[in-house]
Amino acid sequence: MNEFDFISQLREQVGSRKHSSRVLAGIGDDAAVVSQAFGSDSVITSDLLIEEIDFRRASTPPHLLGHKALAVSLSDIAAMGARPIYSLVSLGLPEEVWRTDFKDKFYEGYLALADRFGVTLAGGDLSRSRERIVIDSIVAGEISSGSAIMRSGARPGDQVFVTGTLGGAAAGLKLIEVGARLSEPPAVAGGPSTADDAAIQSLLLRQLRPTPRVGWGIVMGSEKLASAMIDVSDGLSSDLAHLCAASGVGAVLDSASVPVDKNVIKLCGRRALDPLALALHGGEDFELLFTVSSENAARLPKRVDGVEISLIGEITDQPGSLRIREKTREWDLPPQGFEHFE
Amino acid sequence: MNEFDFISQLREQVGSRKHSSRVLAGIGDDAAVVSQAFGSDSVITSDLLIEEIDFRRASTPPHLLGHKALAVSLSDIAAMGARPIYSLVSLGLPEEVWRTDFKDKFYEGYLALADRFGVTLAGGDLSRSRERIVIDSIVAGEISSGSAIMRSGARPGDQVFVTGTLGGAAAGLKLIEVGARLSEPPAVAGGPSTADDAAIQSLLLRQLRPTPRVGWGIVMGSEKLASAMIDVSDGLSSDLAHLCAASGVGAVLDSASVPVDKNVIKLCGRRALDPLALALHGGEDFELLFTVSSENAARLPKRVDGVEISLIGEITDQPGSLRIREKTREWDLPPQGFEHFE
Repeated sequence: MNEFDFISQLREQVGSRKHSSRVLAGIGDDAAVVSQAFGSDSVITSDLLIEEIDFRRASTPPHLLGHKALAVSLSDIAAMGARPIYSLVSLGLPEEVWRTDFKDKFYEGYLALADRFGVTLAGGDLSRSRERIVIDSIVAGEISSGSAIMRSGARPGDQVFVTGTLGGAAAGLKLIEVGARLSEPPAVAGGPSTADDAAIQSLLLRQLRPTPRVGWGIVMGSEKLASAMIDVSDGLSSDLAHLCAASGVGAVLDSASVPVDKNVIKLCGRRALDPLALALHGGEDFELLFTVSSENAARLPKRVDGVEISLIGEITDQPGSLRIREKTREWDLPPQGFEHFE
Repeated sequence: MNEFDFISQLREQVGSRKHSSRVLAGIGDDAAVVSQAFGSDSVITSDLLIEEIDFRRASTPPHLLGHKALAVSLSDIAAMGARPIYSLVSLGLPEEVWRTDFKDKFYEGYLALADRFGVTLAGGDLSRSRERIVIDSIVAGEISSGSAIMRSGARPGDQVFVTGTLGGAAAGLKLIEVGARLSEPPAVAGGPSTADDAAIQSLLLRQLRPTPRVGWGIVMGSEKLASAMIDVSDGLSSDLAHLCAASGVGAVLDSASVPVDKNVIKLCGRRALDPLALALHGGEDFELLFTVSSENAARLPKRVDGVEISLIGEITDQPGSLRIREKTREWDLPPQGFEHFE
């Protein structure tokens, strides 16, 4: 049983013992939705980051870890169409890490991102751990009643969009695995070798310092534009599969429209890696993947906070069928993104 | 720097960059308080439980770990005077634990306690970890606007009360450390040896299956009886010190009034342990410690959910001074409860 099957099972188990009709959406979406009095719903998410699973100490500057811990949860709140308001963070540190300036740098990075999106750190927990750093990031947001965008609302004929570009974070992870490190100060573009350096640094930052699409999330929620939404954390193929499963639909993507990170294209050519595969299956880009009815598509803004969107495919009435089209050919797109447990 | 100094420092740092006037109380209390529209405040807490720090796998049945994970956070919500509504749980499991029925038993224990107090599990995270089980427990509650009971409201002359009995959880931990284990089914009282068994089982359950004082919390919050409140998680001496520090006051306790668990008294005598020391400094009893003005003291209920309270001392105008009195003698009571980092 993988974690998604277990989560489905738990969801059914909990569904039959719901004590409050105010819990509108719970287990199995990007965040929980709880109705508040008078016109507003709370949206809340928690995300674990565990050393040696989600990050490595040696390749992750502490301030960027603080940034990323908050970013991944802000991305979940954005995926519900909500505006983030406040946060908590639970931090478990081994004794030897406690004695360093790790915690100061961690909160420095965390709070800088919180400031950028107007989020107030309201609490959390601080604990000793044994060998590994453990972080649980909790963010609560708000949205007007009934406006939260679930994974389950996609309908056949809806268009499929994604913000920004894909594959960069996965390429950054591969670069870290072969020893690439962030330079301080960042490299400046120049001759051919320096241009490569700049591409590498850019990809490392996609992995280590993701930017959650908070602005896009708020626009989608307030304008009621999307029928379904999810953030790309496990990988496009897997997250699209989650969305389609929740909606009981299928999808067909157009391979030429998938917005592959330009630095991935630049570097992959020389390394015999397939840029499209990274964009389709690589995780942690923290872009937003959403579906829009054809009537609403014309109302979509061109860009929000400087980030554009791409129309990458269409929802079909074939439940469980994920396909990808290249010119006249079409084939299956099995979910190959990240799973914790197989 | 211990964790309490660091938390104070972080609190000041965050206080100057608060983005929302709706965050009424944040870092440094049992839970964060965030105002909602029209008469109600949200109260939210997160608590990390890490294997080999907060529990040992060998001595903790999974369903009781699920119970305890929720119980510690319910205790924080109770300590604010709020009613718990919904919860999230982030769970990190090593691969080999994932393959067992641990997760089923964990959620079974968690959900049984959630049912008892009408709490709906609304979400969370499920992740792989390396060696250790990691749990972050998040509970959100509700209270009418401005009624949350902070640690900071104690005033000189207030009476100090505690619910239930103390020292049992710490004694249970010591018993586990010397090899005692829960028997299934629980031992029944009988001859002298069996009565000892019953006392041991009762203390093990105080450690492994704590009962949060949810009913008392709701009564204190709705009746506006307490001036300050905290739960006894680190130990009475430490938690009273936290409350006094937040309130800028001191306290004097009456040693004869401290409600020592009767099973602690029974077993300690034969083991040369001081029952009062366990009650004063032992952690994890998850009782509520609160202060009440002398006018309000008469309005206190005798018991809630079958749990009584004890008047154990008085708040003084000597900031930082914690004293304990036994008949005509009085001496300093330095906080000796649990600290993660010294």
